[in-house]
Amino acid sequence: MNDINVIKKDVMHVGEMASGAALTVPVYRIQGQGHGPSVYIQANMHGAEVQGNAVIFQLLEQLKHIRLNGDITLVPYANPVGCNHKNGEYTLGRFDPITGVNWNRMYHYDDTNIAAFAKAHQTASVADIERAFKSEMIGQIEQKLNHNIYGLTTGQRIAYQLQRLAHQADIVLDLHTGPISSKHLYCPEYARASAHYFDIEHVLFIPNGFDGALDEATFCPWWQLQLAFAALGRDFPITRADTSQGKDLIIKESFTVELGSQEQIDLALALEDARGILSYLQYQGVMASDEFQPKTMRRYSCMLKDYKALYSPMGGMVDYLAEFGKPLPAGQPLARILRMDNYGDGEPLHAISLDHSVIPILHFASASVNQGTELYKVFSKYSILT
Amino acid sequence: MNDINVIKKDVMHVGEMASGAALTVPVYRIQGQGHGPSVYIQANMHGAEVQGNAVIFQLLEQLKHIRLNGDITLVPYANPVGCNHKNGEYTLGRFDPITGVNWNRMYHYDDTNIAAFAKAHQTASVADIERAFKSEMIGQIEQKLNHNIYGLTTGQRIAYQLQRLAHQADIVLDLHTGPISSKHLYCPEYARASAHYFDIEHVLFIPNGFDGALDEATFCPWWQLQLAFAALGRDFPITRADTSQGKDLIIKESFTVELGSQEQIDLALALEDARGILSYLQYQGVMASDEFQPKTMRRYSCMLKDYKALYSPMGGMVDYLAEFGKPLPAGQPLARILRMDNYGDGEPLHAISLDHSVIPILHFASASVNQGTELYKVFSKYSILT
Amino acid sequence: MNDINVIKKDVMHVGEMASGAALTVPVYRIQGQGHGPSVYIQANMHGAEVQGNAVIFQLLEQLKHIRLNGDITLVPYANPVGCNHKNGEYTLGRFDPITGVNWNRMYHYDDTNIAAFAKAHQTASVADIERAFKSEMIGQIEQKLNHNIYGLTTGQRIAYQLQRLAHQADIVLDLHTGPISSKHLYCPEYARASAHYFDIEHVLFIPNGFDGALDEATFCPWWQLQLAFAALGRDFPITRADTSQGKDLIIKESFTVELGSQEQIDLALALEDARGILSYLQYQGVMASDEFQPKTMRRYSCMLKDYKALYSPMGGMVDYLAEFGKPLPAGQPLARILRMDNYGDGEPLHAISLDHSVIPILHFASASVNQGTELYKVFSKYSILT
Amino acid sequence: MNDINVIKKDVMHVGEMASGAALTVPVYRIQGQGHGPSVYIQANMHGAEVQGNAVIFQLLEQLKHIRLNGDITLVPYANPVGCNHKNGEYTLGRFDPITGVNWNRMYHYDDTNIAAFAKAHQTASVADIERAFKSEMIGQIEQKLNHNIYGLTTGQRIAYQLQRLAHQADIVLDLHTGPISSKHLYCPEYARASAHYFDIEHVLFIPNGFDGALDEATFCPWWQLQLAFAALGRDFPITRADTSQGKDLIIKESFTVELGSQEQIDLALALEDARGILSYLQYQGVMASDEFQPKTMRRYSCMLKDYKALYSPMGGMVDYLAEFGKPLPAGQPLARILRMDNYGDGEPLHAISLDHSVIPILHFASASVNQGTELYKVFSKYSILT
Repeated sequence: MNDINVIKKDVMHVGEMASGAALTVPVYRIQGQGHGPSVYIQANMHGAEVQGNAVIFQLLEQLKHIRLNGDITLVPYANPVGCNHKNGEYTLGRFDPITGVNWNRMYHYDDTNIAAFAKAHQTASVADIERAFKSEMIGQIEQKLNHNIYGLTTGQRIAYQLQRLAHQADIVLDLHTGPISSKHLYCPEYARASAHYFDIEHVLFIPNGFDGALDEATFCPWWQLQLAFAALGRDFPITRADTSQGKDLIIKESFTVELGSQEQIDLALALEDARGILSYLQYQGVMASDEFQPKTMRRYSCMLKDYKALYSPMGGMVDYLAEFGKPLPAGQPLARILRMDNYGDGEPLHAISLDHSVIPILHFASASVNQGTELYKVFSKYSILT
Repeated sequence: MNDINVIKKDVMHVGEMASGAALTVPVYRIQGQGHGPSVYIQANMHGAEVQGNAVIFQLLEQLKHIRLNGDITLVPYANPVGCNHKNGEYTLGRFDPITGVNWNRMYHYDDTNIAAFAKAHQTASVADIERAFKSEMIGQIEQKLNHNIYGLTTGQRIAYQLQRLAHQADIVLDLHTGPISSKHLYCPEYARASAHYFDIEHVLFIPNGFDGALDEATFCPWWQLQLAFAALGRDFPITRADTSQGKDLIIKESFTVELGSQEQIDLALALEDARGILSYLQYQGVMASDEFQPKTMRRYSCMLKDYKALYSPMGGMVDYLAEFGKPLPAGQPLARILRMDNYGDGEPLHAISLDHSVIPILHFASASVNQGTELYKVFSKYSILT
Repeated sequence: MNDINVIKKDVMHVGEMASGAALTVPVYRIQGQGHGPSVYIQANMHGAEVQGNAVIFQLLEQLKHIRLNGDITLVPYANPVGCNHKNGEYTLGRFDPITGVNWNRMYHYDDTNIAAFAKAHQTASVADIERAFKSEMIGQIEQKLNHNIYGLTTGQRIAYQLQRLAHQADIVLDLHTGPISSKHLYCPEYARASAHYFDIEHVLFIPNGFDGALDEATFCPWWQLQLAFAALGRDFPITRADTSQGKDLIIKESFTVELGSQEQIDLALALEDARGILSYLQYQGVMASDEFQPKTMRRYSCMLKDYKALYSPMGGMVDYLAEFGKPLPAGQPLARILRMDNYGDGEPLHAISLDHSVIPILHFASASVNQGTELYKVFSKYSILT
Repeated sequence: MNDINVIKKDVMHVGEMASGAALTVPVYRIQGQGHGPSVYIQANMHGAEVQGNAVIFQLLEQLKHIRLNGDITLVPYANPVGCNHKNGEYTLGRFDPITGVNWNRMYHYDDTNIAAFAKAHQTASVADIERAFKSEMIGQIEQKLNHNIYGLTTGQRIAYQLQRLAHQADIVLDLHTGPISSKHLYCPEYARASAHYFDIEHVLFIPNGFDGALDEATFCPWWQLQLAFAALGRDFPITRADTSQGKDLIIKESFTVELGSQEQIDLALALEDARGILSYLQYQGVMASDEFQPKTMRRYSCMLKDYKALYSPMGGMVDYLAEFGKPLPAGQPLARILRMDNYGDGEPLHAISLDHSVIPILHFASASVNQGTELYKVFSKYSILT
C-alpha cells in the first residue's frame, strides 16, 4: 500500500533530570481533511504500561494508508521518567519515585468559572462556544506552566504539557494497562453508546467527577459545561448519539483504554488493539473508511462505584485462580493463599472468595502479598451492555 | 530518683507480611490519677522520621518519676512497614512502596453525622457528649476494621488501629520530622494559645480541613462538633484557653510536631525535645509539676495556605544556602544550582531566589534534583506569634 | 492416606530489622530410618522466586505418607528480608537492597586446609572422614557466626545459618526460579548421572569453582576433598554412580533447581515439580518406594561456560519471540525491539538474532530494557544428555 | 584574571535507556604544552556522590588561568544512570538498580599478557614501552566495546568508555565520597610519597590487587608491568619518587579521592578540595606554578586489609557518637543503638565499642540499621604518615 499521509514528528521538552538530561516526548501528527473530529492518543503514562506504545506503532502503520477527515496526534512514551525508571528488574510504574504521587493523578481541572462561562455564552453558536471554551482551558494550562513563581512538580509539568495537546482534540484516548489484567475500558457515562465500537468486553462507566486522570481532565469540563447549559435551558450535545440531526455536531469524548497486562510488548496483539481503536474512530467519522467494524462480543458494564478492589485479608503467597472477564459464582475461590509458616501447626492454605458473584478484571502483579495488598479488582455488580 | 509510675507495655498486631511475619507495634501506657486530660503520643509513622522514637524514650525516662493526673499512651515505631523499609542505604520514608500512598494520609474522618449528633445532644452534659461522641468515632473505626468484606489497605489497617488509640485521648501528638529541617509545629487554629508552650520557633496554623493526617483526624471531628453546636447556639469549648471558668472543661487538641531532620537519632537533642513536650503537657494539667516551663523564644507563625513548596525550576545539583528559621530578604539566594553540563557553553551556576521575604523551614534531602523536585518549604507570609 | 511421618517444625532466628522485628525462618524436619542419605531442601533465597515454597508444601504433603530411609530438612522462605521486600508491585528479588549484593553469593567456602585434611586422613575410614570433614565445615561456619568482633553482613548471617543446616545433609537442593524462564538444573559435573532423575529438560554442568552459591558451597568442599585424595592416590567416591559396589558409599550432591518463572505460585505445577524431586530422591535411596519414576524426555545439557547472557544492544521495548527450550536456528529472531522514538526518521523495529544456534532458557522479566540489560540467557553450545 | 586556556567540551554517548533516551557524559579537555604528565579526573560514578562535580567546577575555574604542561581531561556526571536514579528522596547510589552490581566494580583488567609483553620489550626504550603498553590496554577496551556479539552490561559500557579515556592519561583521579564520612584517599602502596601532597588526613594504602575499581584498573597494569620487568632484572620506575634522576621519567599514578559525605554539594568546600588536588598536580609537574602547596597536617595511614567494616550486631536506631578521623580509645563507644521495643522488659540502649583503638572514617547514611548493616568503617591499625 502507498502511504497517503505524511507523519510529522516533533520532540516535546517536558523536563530535566539532575544531570541536566532533557526529558523529551515524541509527538506524531497526521493531518486530516479538516472536517472530522480531531483525535489525541497517548500511551505509557505509567512506566510499566508499555503495550500502548506498540499500539501506537500499529496505528501509525495503518493510518499512513487511510484518508483522514480529522487530525490525529499520537504520543508514545508519554512519561519519560516513569518509562525509564527501573527498580530491580521491573519498571517502577505508577508513581513519582520521589513523592509517591500517581503519575495519572496530576492533570488540571478547575470548574470554578464554567457556570459563568455558560451564562456568558448562552446564545453563542456552538462553534463559538467550542472555540472560546477550548481557549479558556488551554489558557489555564498555559498560566500554570508559565506563570507560577513557586513552580510545578515534575509530574505536573509533564501532565500539563500533554493535557495542552489533548485539549486541542475532540477525542482523547489514554492507553494504559492493568497489572495482570483483561482488557477494559473507562467510559464516561454520557458516551456509553461509543462503548460498542471498541473491541473490549468490559466497560466501566465513570461519573462526572475529577480524580486527576487525563480522561476526566478532558471530558469533565465539557460535561460540566453541558450541565451548566442545561441549567440555563439550553441543550448542548457533545456526542454523536446525542445529535441525531448531525447539525451543530461537536464530539467530546475521552476514554482510558486498558490494554491488558503491564510489562509486555506484543506487536501481534497490538495490531488487534489498533484495529479496535480504528473501529471506534471510524464510527466517529475520523476517517472515511468502512474497513474497521467492531467485533461482535458480549460486553459487560459496571458503574465505577461498583468496581471494587479486594484487599488481601492476610499476608501470604497467592495462587491466582479466577478466570478474568467471566462471572464468578458466589463462593467460588478467586485465589488460594499459601502460608508455609503455618504448615504443621496451622492452616497452610486459605481460599479467598466472596459471597456474591463478581467479574474478576485484574489481579496484583506479584504472588507475594502483604495483608492489605490489592489482590483483585472486580465488577461487583455488572450488566450486559446493550 | 525513684520510679513512681509503672509503665505497662503491650504489643499491638497491625498486619502481616508475605512471609506471614507479624507487623507489630509496641504500646506503652502510664496511668494517671484519673482527673487530668489523657494523652496519646506516637512516632515514626514515616519510616525515615526516627527521632520521635528517641523523644519517646526520653519522655518515658522522665515520666517514670512524675506524678500524673491523666493517662499517657506512647507508641514508638508506629509504622512497622515503613520503619524497616530500606531502598539503598536510606529508609523509604513517606509512602507505601507498593501503592505510593503517603502513610500519613490514610486516617479516617467522616463528618456526615456530626450535625445530627449535635442536634441530638443539644442539651446533653459536656461529659455525656464527650462520651457519646468518642464512642461514635471509635465505633466508626471498629466498623472499618472489622466489617468490610473487601478489606482494608495495608496502611489503613495500621492507621485505623493507631487512630482507635488516639481517639481515646484528649491530647494527640504525632511526632514527625522534615527531610532536612528546622523544628516546626502544626497547630489547629483554635489551639493557638497552646503554641507558646512547646519549645518550637515555627508554628503553622491549620484550618478545619481533613487531608488524611492523624492530627486532623482527631481534631477535625471535635472542631466540627463545636461548629455544629455553635450553629445551634450552644458554646462548646474544647481548649483550656476557651474555658476561663474551668468548669465543664474538656480539652481536645492535636498537633503534628516536626522535630528536625529525618534519618537521625540524637538522644541528647531528644531530651530537649521531650522537655518541650512536657512543658506543654504540664500547661494542660496532665501532671501536677511545675518543673517544665517553656523557653522564651521568638515564635513565628504562618497560615497553612501560606506554607509554600518551591519546586526546582531546573534539574541540577543544589548547594543549599539559606539558613532555616530566619526571614530571608527578597532576592537573597535560597540555593545555587550547579549544572556542570552547561560549563563552557552555558551557565553552570544558577541562583534561586524569590521576590519577597520568606522564612525557609526545610529543604529536600538530596543535592540532586529534577526539574520540579520540591527544593524548599517556606513561610511565604509570617508574623510573630504573640 | 495415613500420615506415617511426624513433621517437626522449628523457627530459626536469622536476624533483626531496625524496629527490632525478628527475622525468622521455619525449618521442617522429617526423620528417616537412619540408613539412607539425608536431604536438605530450601526455597525462596531470592525474594521473587516463590514457587519453591509451593513445591516444599507439596513435598511435605507427599512425604507425610512415605517411609523414609534418610532424614529430610525443608526450609521455605529461606530469606525473610528478600521475601518481604516490595519495591513497587514486585518483590525486590535478587540482592540486599542496601548493598546490592546477591543473596545467593554470600555462602562460605575456604579450601585452604583441604589438602592437609586429606593427608591427615589418608588411611581413615570413609565414615571417619565424613564425620571429621563435616565437623570441620560446620566448625568454620560456627566460627564465622560466633567469633567475629567486626560482625557479619545481614546476608552472611542468614546464609551461614542455612549453610550450617545444609552441611549436615548428603544431598542439597536449592530451589530457585528464573525471571521468565523454562525449568533448568544446575548440576555439578561429577553428578551428571543424577541429572536423568529430575523431570527437567535443561541441565547446566558446573565445574569445581566457588562463586558464592549454596550448591557450590556444599559440593565444592567434597569435590575438592576427592581431588586431594586422588592426588594422594586414594579413590574417594561421592556419588552413587561412582560406587558400583555400594560399599563405603557416601553420596554428596548439590543442585540448584530452577523451577520456571518468578513471581508466581502455582500449586498444581508445584505438585509436578515435587514429584520430579521425589524421583531423584528415590533414586538416591532416600526412601524405599518405587512410586516416583523420572519422565522420559529429551534432556539438553550445556557447560556453564557456554551458558551465555545476551545483553541488549540497544535501549527499547522488547517483544520476546523465541520459544524456550528448543534449539533456535542461527539467524532466527530471539526478539524484536521497538523504538517508537525512531518512528518516521529511523528504524522503529529491530530484530535480535545470533549467528549460531542456541537454546533460549530464560528472558528478562520486563519489556523495557536499557542498552546492556540482560535480554536472554541461552545454551550457546549444547548436546543431548545421554 | 584572564583565561589563558581554552576548555574544549565534548559529549560522549555511553548508552541508551528504554525510551531511547541517550545516556551522555560531558568531557572537558584542556591542552597543555605537551611536556608534563597528562591527567584524567572523573566524578560521580556513584550516583549520590556528587561533590566531585563541584570540585571539577572549581578545578575548571582555576585551570582556566594556569599554564599547563600536561593535558587534563575532566569528566563530571560520569554515570548518567546512577546520577539521575531516585528512589524516594535519595539518589540510589552505589549499584545498577537492575542487577545490584556496584558501578565502580565493572572496569576491565586482564594481566594475562603482561609477562610476555615485558619479555618482548625487555630492551625497548621507556617511551616505546609506554606507547606500546598503552596501546595494548586501549586495544583490549576497544575489543570489549566493539567486538562482542553477546554484548556488554549497561555498567560495563559506561565504565569501559571512561576507562578508555583514563588509560590515555598518566595520572587518574576518581572522585568519590563516603556515605557520612571524613575525607580519605585510596593510594597505591608504590605511590605513598604522593599522599603528602593532597590535603587529606587519612590515607589507605592499597596493594596490587584488582577488585574492579577505576584506580586499580589503571594502576594495576603498570604495577604489574613493573613487577614483570623486575623479574627480568629491569628497573622500571613509574613514580616521580622512584626516579631521582628524572631521566626517562614516566609517572603512572591513580587515586580514589573520597571527598566527604554523599548527597551534598558545597561549592566553598569544593574550592578547598580543588586546591588540594592542584597541589598534588603541581608536585607532579602538571603545571608550572608554585601556587598550590599542600597544607601541613597530621596524616594517618592504614593498609587496606586493616580498613575494617563494623557490622551492626543488632537491628535498631543509631545515635552515631564517634568523631571521625581521630583515634578512638579501646572501649569508647562508637555509637549507641536504641531499641524502643525493649523498653520496659529489656535493654533499650546498647553501646557499641571495640576492644582496641581505631580511627573512625565513615558511618552509615541512615539511623536505621538491620542486624548486619555496615555501621562504621575504621582504620583498625594505623600509623602516622611520614
